[in-house]
Amino acid sequence: MTRAAFAFAFAAALLASGPALAQTLHSPTNKLALNFRLSPEGEPLYQLSFGQKQVLKPSRLGVLLQGQPGFDKGLTVIKVDSAQVDETWAPVWGEVKQIRNRYKELLVTLQQPGTEKRQMQVRFRLFDDGLGFRYEWPQQPNLQYFVVQQERTEFNLPANHKAFWIPGDYDSNEYAYQTTRLSEVNTLPITPIQLKAAPTTVQTPLMLKSDDGLYVNIHEAALVNYPAMMLNVDTKNYALGAQLVPSATGAAAYLQAPEHTPWRTVVVSDKATEVLASKLILNLNEPTKLQDVSWIKPQKFVGVWWEMHVNKASWNYSDTGNLKLASTDWNALKPNGRHGANTANVKRYIDFAAKHGIEGVLVEGWNVGWEDWHGNWKEEVFDFVTPYPDFDVQELQRYATGKGVKLIMHHETSGSVTNYERRQDEALRFMKDHGYDAVKTGYVGRIIPRGEHHDGQWMVNHYNRTAEHMAKRQIMVDMHESVRPTGQHRTYPNWLASEAARGNEFNAWSEGNPPEHETILPFTRLMGGPMDYTPGVFQIKLESWNPERNKGRQVHTTLAKQLALYVTMYSPLQMAADLPEAYEQRLDAFQFIKDVAVDWDDTRVLLAEPGDYLTIARKAKGKDEWYLGAITDEQARNQQVKLDFLSPNTTYEATIYADGKGADWEKNPMVYQIRNVRVTSKSNLKLQLAAGGGTAISFKPARR
Amino acid sequence: MTRAAFAFAFAAALLASGPALAQTLHSPTNKLALNFRLSPEGEPLYQLSFGQKQVLKPSRLGVLLQGQPGFDKGLTVIKVDSAQVDETWAPVWGEVKQIRNRYKELLVTLQQPGTEKRQMQVRFRLFDDGLGFRYEWPQQPNLQYFVVQQERTEFNLPANHKAFWIPGDYDSNEYAYQTTRLSEVNTLPITPIQLKAAPTTVQTPLMLKSDDGLYVNIHEAALVNYPAMMLNVDTKNYALGAQLVPSATGAAAYLQAPEHTPWRTVVVSDKATEVLASKLILNLNEPTKLQDVSWIKPQKFVGVWWEMHVNKASWNYSDTGNLKLASTDWNALKPNGRHGANTANVKRYIDFAAKHGIEGVLVEGWNVGWEDWHGNWKEEVFDFVTPYPDFDVQELQRYATGKGVKLIMHHETSGSVTNYERRQDEALRFMKDHGYDAVKTGYVGRIIPRGEHHDGQWMVNHYNRTAEHMAKRQIMVDMHESVRPTGQHRTYPNWLASEAARGNEFNAWSEGNPPEHETILPFTRLMGGPMDYTPGVFQIKLESWNPERNKGRQVHTTLAKQLALYVTMYSPLQMAADLPEAYEQRLDAFQFIKDVAVDWDDTRVLLAEPGDYLTIARKAKGKDEWYLGAITDEQARNQQVKLDFLSPNTTYEATIYADGKGADWEKNPMVYQIRNVRVTSKSNLKLQLAAGGGTAISFKPARR
Repeated sequence: MTRAAFAFAFAAALLASGPALAQTLHSPTNKLALNFRLSPEGEPLYQLSFGQKQVLKPSRLGVLLQGQPGFDKGLTVIKVDSAQVDETWAPVWGEVKQIRNRYKELLVTLQQPGTEKRQMQVRFRLFDDGLGFRYEWPQQPNLQYFVVQQERTEFNLPANHKAFWIPGDYDSNEYAYQTTRLSEVNTLPITPIQLKAAPTTVQTPLMLKSDDGLYVNIHEAALVNYPAMMLNVDTKNYALGAQLVPSATGAAAYLQAPEHTPWRTVVVSDKATEVLASKLILNLNEPTKLQDVSWIKPQKFVGVWWEMHVNKASWNYSDTGNLKLASTDWNALKPNGRHGANTANVKRYIDFAAKHGIEGVLVEGWNVGWEDWHGNWKEEVFDFVTPYPDFDVQELQRYATGKGVKLIMHHETSGSVTNYERRQDEALRFMKDHGYDAVKTGYVGRIIPRGEHHDGQWMVNHYNRTAEHMAKRQIMVDMHESVRPTGQHRTYPNWLASEAARGNEFNAWSEGNPPEHETILPFTRLMGGPMDYTPGVFQIKLESWNPERNKGRQVHTTLAKQLALYVTMYSPLQMAADLPEAYEQRLDAFQFIKDVAVDWDDTRVLLAEPGDYLTIARKAKGKDEWYLGAITDEQARNQQVKLDFLSPNTTYEATIYADGKGADWEKNPMVYQIRNVRVTSKSNLKLQLAAGGGTAISFKPARR
Repeated sequence: MTRAAFAFAFAAALLASGPALAQTLHSPTNKLALNFRLSPEGEPLYQLSFGQKQVLKPSRLGVLLQGQPGFDKGLTVIKVDSAQVDETWAPVWGEVKQIRNRYKELLVTLQQPGTEKRQMQVRFRLFDDGLGFRYEWPQQPNLQYFVVQQERTEFNLPANHKAFWIPGDYDSNEYAYQTTRLSEVNTLPITPIQLKAAPTTVQTPLMLKSDDGLYVNIHEAALVNYPAMMLNVDTKNYALGAQLVPSATGAAAYLQAPEHTPWRTVVVSDKATEVLASKLILNLNEPTKLQDVSWIKPQKFVGVWWEMHVNKASWNYSDTGNLKLASTDWNALKPNGRHGANTANVKRYIDFAAKHGIEGVLVEGWNVGWEDWHGNWKEEVFDFVTPYPDFDVQELQRYATGKGVKLIMHHETSGSVTNYERRQDEALRFMKDHGYDAVKTGYVGRIIPRGEHHDGQWMVNHYNRTAEHMAKRQIMVDMHESVRPTGQHRTYPNWLASEAARGNEFNAWSEGNPPEHETILPFTRLMGGPMDYTPGVFQIKLESWNPERNKGRQVHTTLAKQLALYVTMYSPLQMAADLPEAYEQRLDAFQFIKDVAVDWDDTRVLLAEPGDYLTIARKAKGKDEWYLGAITDEQARNQQVKLDFLSPNTTYEATIYADGKGADWEKNPMVYQIRNVRVTSKSNLKLQLAAGGGTAISFKPARR
């Protein structure tokens, strides 16, 4: 690790000259330039350019407080500090082995008028691939406890860019992306999940593309003790304004100095591939404090899960509803005969995982409370420690251990987080006592404390606290229905993945995800961190599981594309989502899922265009093996791929899992072909992607 | 225990006759009569009479739901059931050894119009000393989860009664009582604590007295999973309407059928003494489910507490403010030299307790976080397990155990209940590991979850859950700043006491409590359960502790009255609130505190008038010893007391602790006299109470 930093202050000069001089900061290799100044009214303004192209027009900065003067106007600059950093660090797991953190920094200290001399700082970090900035409140005598009502932060775009957006919902990210001009943003016709914001409010990460070919991604990094930021779109002026998710009281954040906001991030490039390669958000997160990370294991898993989605089994043990957790005799309930999480069925998954080298088996619906778990805003739903009568915890612990497989715990909270928090200690003890060291958490439904939101400060603190509690107990966690990630897996590497987007599951029981969905996710949701998307569905036509209830339902994909997703949708935690019997019918294709890595030494984004296509190659951690995934939207495409990422002087056996003849995501999704070819770093491959299709390739050194 | 019950139904007759017939129910010995009927609009109405006197005029009943038709009008009576009960039960501890539960019951089933046939029941229980009624929702197909928006319950009084009231504050009961006619109720000029309700909203227990000598007390019993009820006063018509404390969303209660409300209680008598003797509220609570209650011990205690109130010591260890729990190095803080909870000082209290046979020693301020614990609506204030550097937990455990004294834990939450709940498991383990089996909890300040109130459903559930958790771990609890009690110490006998009113402490740092305060509390706050009032202040002039900061402060009492409070303010948990050095100067008077019991076989309310005076005699549990307390308001009074409660044929030595010559609460509070006389059950005693004074007497069988 190398590090160089220096700091100097313009304070004297500035104070002498009265109103602030404009400050300009250039990125390490001058790709980007940032300008900061105060308006004549003392409003902080910043702008950003990429070469000759304007990224952001002059945009306001500022924070409004509750019951106190805001930090938004009438301010003076009393000090400006600079620094620069160039260091390299190694993530515990990730897409690459090493990450370079190189930026120039500007720290502007602003002061309110009046005798109280209350100060706020804006810290800018300018990288070659984008900008991060945040507000900071240093320790000071006249600002200790304070309440942020709202931010004045703007991202004013110079033109009517194309935008990939989902509506501003304080409680859910589970929407298909809309692709429109900024002027056309309107969330109103969209089927709401728990939509509460204005019709022109959208979520971050927001992906934008200008007509002159600039790719701009706006999000945030290191969301700690603060609500998530959404963006209000001014559809006439293409200006975006921060909209903080409110707490139950309507205020945004309850803070105590010294404190700071998350980083607001703007990733910029004229190449879509470079947006995906950016490590800016990770770089803006804090390094982990964990000393021992040996217990953290990127992994694949199967689970008693998809069979519930496809109506072959149920989470609930009984069909009796309207039960109360404390007063129900769970042993006396009449079983419905369809309960998925029964001991025999779980053993079937354990057997399958053991046979194919899959590390984990998730079991949902193992614990009492699923009879009426959802939609009632009820506090006492689950206790996280009481199994259904047909789920034998001890026996399954014994059986899984004997087979070298790990069971993965499931903690669905039903959004009742007060209930989860007061039972979490006991729930984690129960896990450790029964051999579980990973858990999938869930937050379906409206939050309790009532009035709080999934994406508000209180819940943000809950997710972070949960990651921390679990790290203390050496437990890995995968959070569903949480706030969308902001790179905090750097700080909590046991927080392997989150859902926080519209996953593959939507294909099972809704209008589904359009084929373009997975080409947009890496440019939006995945900018913040790994997603548990649950790829790998082979039985794409779902009627075969339950002809009556799944009529017409199918995953919007070809089979080969499902394989490619293991490479294109980066995550250290990857589910093989389908049922064992689906895989057993197509073990040749399943071989790719068995082979593909979940942790990487290197990643090359070869081709990318949001909403259209994506081709990525990755080198498996510690091995000379590469895996390539290529996916397309509803358009069939041919791609020419140079294999110059392969090690020179090595011949590889490439196993190509491609769409079969006549493959089409809608009409003929399950046809695929597998072929082997020998290649070197000088080879080219022509990939033929069907409509809604893809290609997956494994490259292993050829046996002589 | 004897029990007789029978039930019969009028259903057929009612259905045949169309609109409901009026139902009349008489109390077991015909003292009270209840009438129920439906108005022509299908509104449920009830009225109550005491002999020829009207207690309540026709008053509406009903519950409004959120987003669904209410149970307030358009209803039909589809069934009426009756029952009667006469049984006797023994409380784990209490004012009397046995309690008779005798009532007649009417259960009216009401149905909404329409095809959904949703039902609500009203259950009336009519005792000879009052009425209890509640709403019930039986299990039914079309009403499972529902939200109570508000109640329509009325208590319509026939005239402009005198009322003893405190303002309708959703978060505090810590007010001095106002005594006005109903027409004069106006909370506006009162200094608010966290006042939020309308200016004509008051709290229960509400004590009323009619001009024709009827005493009426309105409160509730068995407050479970529901908000507290306040009362809106119609100052023109003397009608009272239920006002439920709202949740963060504004709704009152989130419920799941089968469910019921707490009992609304109306205690009625033409004798004030009988109001105090009523066991109606206890009878309406559920019996305890605890099998083993041997570990529950009524007790007296001293504590490191009053010395903080009188500015002799501090809760906080350092005077540095604006600290954060997680990031502060508590060992590095500069001590302020005034920290009360230091090892040596606590040992002094242990020595004193051991010497005088006092069971417990409370220590406040032992744990880190007191530097800026209050008023910041901060979530992470205390962790409940980390002592200040000068408080040696292990050494004090050893020392107290050696002396046969129990330390009492203190859990101040600062209102941050989410923080307490997620740490409670660990906090209780810490207690058990260090020999604590009793805890005083505190909820000073605004509640987190933000938007919830101390007296709302969510917090009500918290208090009950806490009592239950502690019972499981054999821990006794004393809750401060909780919702006011509703007789739940019957169900949770480990919940020894609550504060939930304006305690003695107010005399230390405010305008104080007027001398009448303790004559009103038994008719109001204490109707629901024991209070930790902290009597026993001997050093009544507080300037002697800190001349500068306590200038002019004094407790509004005579010393003898402080002794009398141990009898008049019933509680199984009684503090000897003053400092050891105060008691050591007056060990003759302290003898009464040493002697007085905290658990009783019998209680006789001899004289009582709310706001004026109160004389009670109680027989110590399992002993032939009686204790008498007599107190007065700011008026000096002479009382003639017959000792016919004493066992016949026994001569007792009475030790009389009376106001001394010239005693006066304001001008000469600390003068007292002690004399011994021999008495029998045929004796009379003349008590002379000074202005703001009192008399305490112990009666022990005389040695021959």
